[in-house]
Amino acid sequence: MLNDADDALIARLRAVLPPAAFRETTEHYTRESRDRWRGRGPVVAPGSTSEVAEVMRACAGARVPVVPFGGGTGLVGGQLKGEGAVPVILSLERMTAIRDLRPEENVLVAEAGAVLADVQAAAEAAGRLFPLSLASEGSARIGGLLSTNAGGINVIRYGTARALCLGLEVVTAGGAVWNGLSRLRKDNTGYDLRDLMIGSEGTLGIITAASLRLFPRPAAEGTAMLAVPSPEAALRLLALAQGQVGEGISAFELIHRQGFAFLEEVGPEVTLPFAEAPDWSVLIDLGLPAGLSPDAALEALFEAAAEQGLATDGVIARSEAQRRALWAVRESIPEANRRIGSVSSHDISVPVGAVPAFIAAAPGRLAEVGEFRVNCFGHLGDGNLHYNVFPLPGKTREDHAGQREAVKRAIHDLVHEMGGSVSAEHGVGRLKVGDLARYGDPEKLRMMRAIKTALDPLGLLNPGAVLPE
Amino acid sequence: MLNDADDALIARLRAVLPPAAFRETTEHYTRESRDRWRGRGPVVAPGSTSEVAEVMRACAGARVPVVPFGGGTGLVGGQLKGEGAVPVILSLERMTAIRDLRPEENVLVAEAGAVLADVQAAAEAAGRLFPLSLASEGSARIGGLLSTNAGGINVIRYGTARALCLGLEVVTAGGAVWNGLSRLRKDNTGYDLRDLMIGSEGTLGIITAASLRLFPRPAAEGTAMLAVPSPEAALRLLALAQGQVGEGISAFELIHRQGFAFLEEVGPEVTLPFAEAPDWSVLIDLGLPAGLSPDAALEALFEAAAEQGLATDGVIARSEAQRRALWAVRESIPEANRRIGSVSSHDISVPVGAVPAFIAAAPGRLAEVGEFRVNCFGHLGDGNLHYNVFPLPGKTREDHAGQREAVKRAIHDLVHEMGGSVSAEHGVGRLKVGDLARYGDPEKLRMMRAIKTALDPLGLLNPGAVLPE
Repeated sequence: MLNDADDALIARLRAVLPPAAFRETTEHYTRESRDRWRGRGPVVAPGSTSEVAEVMRACAGARVPVVPFGGGTGLVGGQLKGEGAVPVILSLERMTAIRDLRPEENVLVAEAGAVLADVQAAAEAAGRLFPLSLASEGSARIGGLLSTNAGGINVIRYGTARALCLGLEVVTAGGAVWNGLSRLRKDNTGYDLRDLMIGSEGTLGIITAASLRLFPRPAAEGTAMLAVPSPEAALRLLALAQGQVGEGISAFELIHRQGFAFLEEVGPEVTLPFAEAPDWSVLIDLGLPAGLSPDAALEALFEAAAEQGLATDGVIARSEAQRRALWAVRESIPEANRRIGSVSSHDISVPVGAVPAFIAAAPGRLAEVGEFRVNCFGHLGDGNLHYNVFPLPGKTREDHAGQREAVKRAIHDLVHEMGGSVSAEHGVGRLKVGDLARYGDPEKLRMMRAIKTALDPLGLLNPGAVLPE
Repeated sequence: MLNDADDALIARLRAVLPPAAFRETTEHYTRESRDRWRGRGPVVAPGSTSEVAEVMRACAGARVPVVPFGGGTGLVGGQLKGEGAVPVILSLERMTAIRDLRPEENVLVAEAGAVLADVQAAAEAAGRLFPLSLASEGSARIGGLLSTNAGGINVIRYGTARALCLGLEVVTAGGAVWNGLSRLRKDNTGYDLRDLMIGSEGTLGIITAASLRLFPRPAAEGTAMLAVPSPEAALRLLALAQGQVGEGISAFELIHRQGFAFLEEVGPEVTLPFAEAPDWSVLIDLGLPAGLSPDAALEALFEAAAEQGLATDGVIARSEAQRRALWAVRESIPEANRRIGSVSSHDISVPVGAVPAFIAAAPGRLAEVGEFRVNCFGHLGDGNLHYNVFPLPGKTREDHAGQREAVKRAIHDLVHEMGGSVSAEHGVGRLKVGDLARYGDPEKLRMMRAIKTALDPLGLLNPGAVLPE
């Protein structure tokens, strides 16, 4: 049984932490963007790894749960514990240092509280690229991004957060420190605890710092938005692009007409690239080495695509401003979605080749539940779609509140039948604990529970996230 | 306490497995290339995943240990258990199927017994690249390569075996099957058991099949060997090359003059590229997209390097035969080493930027032990050196048998002081269990033992490898 974080615990913490470590429990820590969960508990923001260890030891002694808190941008409730014992909310916000930056080794060591945009900027100032990029990069923090194995737009080229990490420093459930902040490219000495911690959503340890991989910046970049006749055509266009420019594709995003319609309906105001929105379009980003022109490559791609009937229209950005304008369309869609208000949102993946079949089959499953609008967009190159379901015009998400679970079930069942994942890049958090139990491999779940018990026998670390409390 | 694999167990296995599954215990299964260990035990070669599970369940019931056996090419004794209870040697050699091949998705699913060269060939026949490449590729099998997280020459561009795997099928210690053979590029549903199994050297589960990543083949490839004045210059040449050709560098190998000398002394016979062997040289492989010429890129690189004093001589391959000849030099060095007979071999890594400092400091440490010849070569781009220590001419490894441990300690201590790894790509096996205990982070070791106990409570899986029995 766990205990609440009470005054006695706070008194113990005040004895070992400076006053600056104590924070008011504001809504920043207790609400999330979709307002699905409410968190609670005192907020403690240690200033160093040893202070994190002090907090963990105090909580272990008192059997009080701990919820690690980064930027608070998670979409699955992993950062908010509203039920059971009241936790300490352990915010990493004061640990923002970039401890080391070695452009010649393509390595940057950041503390867990460093904001992604700041890490990107530090890499850029050193002539390097840290390629993790997603909508919340202005507030998401490195610890949270790693603990959820964040994805984003550049995964097709550079992989998820996991692929960008060389080593970790972690405070364990018992309040010890594992110093795994390696700068090594190769190290086969024992089990891969780094990747076990990455994606474990704060349930196996608290990431306090990370050694991150940097990359050379591509010599030249280019962007185009092409109208495609169908998702099948988009997939064939991807194969064509891979054949023509190899590994130079940095992003390959699929956008449905509904996204443009939502932008026109509720904003944010952006310049749409086509006079009439096509049913489907793709946004392509290229980053090429010296000696190759992204514009020429995109023109050659469009020409070949048009010849094969894979593209019907297209816009190639002719300036950095035009590149940003094309990306603004893609990046404004999540905000438009929020303004419309979804009945249910789904962060799913299927094998890349199965994306068209999924898009073809999903409306039939939804029709068995009711009438909806669907905004389907996402990272085609990763087989990762944000398949979000909205009310018809004139209705609201509240009108469909009773159907939410049925909608989710219909989509997730289809994903599961197709060998897909019901959480491609957002994680399990508290939202998908039931889905994991329903769809997960039983033997995998058994091993996960055994590992959780082995590394956190008292169940102190983020209880209720990933696995049931 | 574990029991020996005795006649009663074999009788039980004969009841559930076909006769074809039983193999004679030849030296293939009980000796390794350096003859440091001898294995023993009956050999069983199941023909399917369910047969592997049958073996595991029978062994669990009888408390008999199991040693998974792939190609038998491991260099650290992980495949040979010579002490304690006699194990079942579970060979994956009959599970060689390529279960699925989807070039359009860049995915290949192979069983654990598939030989690396066969997987490479299957990918090539489909117009794709499976980039894992190492000296033993003609006999090493996929299961062993993944369980040791094998490296090789293309890690700088494509990563280690870990980075090339999308999913696994694993038989657990209890004889259950985890079906994690995902073709997904993104899947954040729960703990990363895939990467935990990869590199665990058969101590946490038995890999029976893997879903592997394929890549587009570079449009054109080129190879050069450049003489460099020093390891520092080699490192600066690497940075120069990364600046000029970005991510197009597929391999960047450092070779010391001693390697050429050994080849001349004992063979194998190869054509050496320089009339007089330089102290240091690098072998560079480029793979570039369409529109770029590797030859031109290598010429431009050599020109810039010569101008900056980073290269004093060079050979650029002008044909596929010349490319192969340059690679034959590099690939023959391990065989020359075997013919000379090392006192102690070290598969170490340090941060890439620290390679020159390591090479400068190591001879001083060795001199405290005795007089030796050193052949230092390896994957400079990964900070991974094979730092192998040999007797002076006229002496043999046996003459130095009493110094072997002191040599190893001297090198490994230095590596540890420099933040490096005493096993960069070969694994821990039985050779480096003591090193892991000596140099490993105590908290990491504690977590490893907890995970081992959680997933294999009876200690059946490859006991004595990675962790002490």
